[in-house]
Amino acid sequence: MTHSAIRDMRAEIGAANEHFMAEFATGDSARIAACYTADGALLPPGSEMLTGHDAIAAFWRGAVGMGIASARLETQEVAPGDSSATEIGRYTLLAADGSTIDHGKYIVLWKRADDGSLKLHRDIWNSSVAPAST
Amino acid sequence: MTHSAIRDMRAEIGAANEHFMAEFATGDSARIAACYTADGALLPPGSEMLTGHDAIAAFWRGAVGMGIASARLETQEVAPGDSSATEIGRYTLLAADGSTIDHGKYIVLWKRADDGSLKLHRDIWNSSVAPAST
Repeated sequence: MTHSAIRDMRAEIGAANEHFMAEFATGDSARIAACYTADGALLPPGSEMLTGHDAIAAFWRGAVGMGIASARLETQEVAPGDSSATEIGRYTLLAADGSTIDHGKYIVLWKRADDGSLKLHRDIWNSSVAPAST
Repeated sequence: MTHSAIRDMRAEIGAANEHFMAEFATGDSARIAACYTADGALLPPGSEMLTGHDAIAAFWRGAVGMGIASARLETQEVAPGDSSATEIGRYTLLAADGSTIDHGKYIVLWKRADDGSLKLHRDIWNSSVAPAST
């Protein structure tokens, strides 16, 4: 793949992340889930893999209920694939007052949906914050 | 990419994982780190991204010192890319007596090294075990 194609893919992922962040900030879990492919999956810490829009919406509804008002996503790298791309990035989860609830790293496998748009297909992350020692 | 090419890539990743598991079981952190590209990176829970063989070896030395004697990796999906591939899988970390210390999910971005072998380039995971409530 040419450098310009990689640049284009990175820009397209940037736009898809902007869309995700805007949908997340609405707090509407169905709108967040619609950013994922129909057979999309979350790989969340402390849980088995969750597959499909209903499970994804339920997970994000729980996160919003716990006070996560918005998410900031920052792409660090993009590796393009066949009708897909793998993104490595950093996230910050924010409360309504703008304070940071958590920050960490993620890898997202993006896939082009039938309508031509990029959607999250596989989404794994973990916190960079060391757990409090007990 | 053709279906047979995807099958070939999956088989090659399977072999690379067998190699990783064998190296891991030696407990020699330099041998574990050598399974990663020279600019490979770990994205471990509770830590910022760790880049390069020295940092990767130090991390796995710590894990071995905490009693992790072997790792089992099980590929679930492979998405091929340009001189790379993205793998989604499950891991189990075992103590010397064969008991399970942790199990969870991972995404690895594999990259073809100059010598033609596949190496781990980006490696993120998280536990599927819910943290103990406090």
